Amino acid sequence: MSVTIGVFDSGFGGLTVLRELLPLIPGAHYVYLGDTARLPYGSKSQTTIARYAVESARFLESRGADHLVVACNTASALALEQIAASVHIPVTGVIEPAVSTARQRHPDANVLVLATAATVQSHAYRTRCAAHGLHATERACPLLVPLVEEGWIDHPVTREVIRIYLQEALAAGTPRAVLLGCTHYPLIAPSIQSSLRELGSEAEVIDSARATAVSVERAVHHMGELSYGEATFECYVTDSVEKFERLGSNFLGRPVKGVQLVDLGG
Amino acid sequence: MSVTIGVFDSGFGGLTVLRELLPLIPGAHYVYLGDTARLPYGSKSQTTIARYAVESARFLESRGADHLVVACNTASALALEQIAASVHIPVTGVIEPAVSTARQRHPDANVLVLATAATVQSHAYRTRCAAHGLHATERACPLLVPLVEEGWIDHPVTREVIRIYLQEALAAGTPRAVLLGCTHYPLIAPSIQSSLRELGSEAEVIDSARATAVSVERAVHHMGELSYGEATFECYVTDSVEKFERLGSNFLGRPVKGVQLVDLGG
Repeated sequence: MSVTIGVFDSGFGGLTVLRELLPLIPGAHYVYLGDTARLPYGSKSQTTIARYAVESARFLESRGADHLVVACNTASALALEQIAASVHIPVTGVIEPAVSTARQRHPDANVLVLATAATVQSHAYRTRCAAHGLHATERACPLLVPLVEEGWIDHPVTREVIRIYLQEALAAGTPRAVLLGCTHYPLIAPSIQSSLRELGSEAEVIDSARATAVSVERAVHHMGELSYGEATFECYVTDSVEKFERLGSNFLGRPVKGVQLVDLGG
Repeated sequence: MSVTIGVFDSGFGGLTVLRELLPLIPGAHYVYLGDTARLPYGSKSQTTIARYAVESARFLESRGADHLVVACNTASALALEQIAASVHIPVTGVIEPAVSTARQRHPDANVLVLATAATVQSHAYRTRCAAHGLHATERACPLLVPLVEEGWIDHPVTREVIRIYLQEALAAGTPRAVLLGCTHYPLIAPSIQSSLRELGSEAEVIDSARATAVSVERAVHHMGELSYGEATFECYVTDSVEKFERLGSNFLGRPVKGVQLVDLGG
């Protein structure tokens, strides 16, 4: 059998989750939706985010998805229950897999969560961590998304910004794990890991994109034997196909082509 | 008589224009609208931006504005004609005043325009400059808005980012004037000016917020003698009052209080 996996984000970031899914579930058909016309979700109210996310989830279900991945931290933090209640397929967000991985590797430890201002404000990571017996400090890193989108992945300015953010965060505690609570951050995970070392921290960076992909792979295997053909793609965005194809390839780690424009309304 | 001036932006940036208006037209009543629920306009299509901007303009007219200032580069670039056609009061955008000031001070010169990616893509500055006999090079500076919003106004990272952007731009030509084509940039104008000097450029920084305020003052004086009482304010946003009050004071240069939430629709 072949399985169709729907992946949804407000923009490009979710492509880092898709990138991790590909080697784990190579035989699947993937349908990606980037709700780029309405990004960033982070500055919107919970009601608005839930409405957008539910529309996106239903679109992916209508395109035949058997499993839905909410590859967006804001939507996972603020609208996961509403999404799960609005579709008839299993739903995986990006927060629980990362927290669960941290708990397995570092039980009872302090963890540091790096995320956007909106995700930090929601305290979704702190809440999930507390449920797993982990104590989380959340640190907003508003400059990291724009730096990644500028393409300054391995760049002195990016390393300096990471150093400043981490230095302030480490002054407040000694984490054993650092959770990347934004789907843009896996691209700069090596810089974050080496900056931690330079600052004398032994914390391990836990990539939520990778943790989410592992969790989806487990869930999808319950559906039965998968075929092992080549992965196939459909990709939809709600604004500028050209920009998505240009920026997206950095996130996916391969060219992004054949993107289609779709209108989800207001 | 007292005059009511409506000032509109997608977010906080327009407060830098309001800050310049206050000393020039101290006796006016000001109504500010930040359409924060729908920012950034820059990633949206022209049709969507025009619809949002017209709704905002009509709201300010309904609040009694005698003159409308479109203190948003994206809306000025992409929707000024549609805004002007949809209200019954005079409208001033931020682009023409800056370009006109550059032409007066540096006729026939090369100018460099620093702006967001969306404003650069519209080529609105290049077009207006050409109409004034100026040759413009436009440079997108996507990191400057996030750096200003992070509060890193006089910060080594911000100075380094400005240096990188300017160094690349100056390699392509020798401008006599540098236009700040984004309402966030006036906050870092001193860093931009000193970075230009360090890079051996004698170009003058032209602040579009200041140029716009001067242009509005001229237009409003045609309405007759103004009273010279204390300026009064109303301030509306379409999302998070708390965030606007917190970040806005940096832009206005004084506390921003009593902000009211308004719903302009989807």
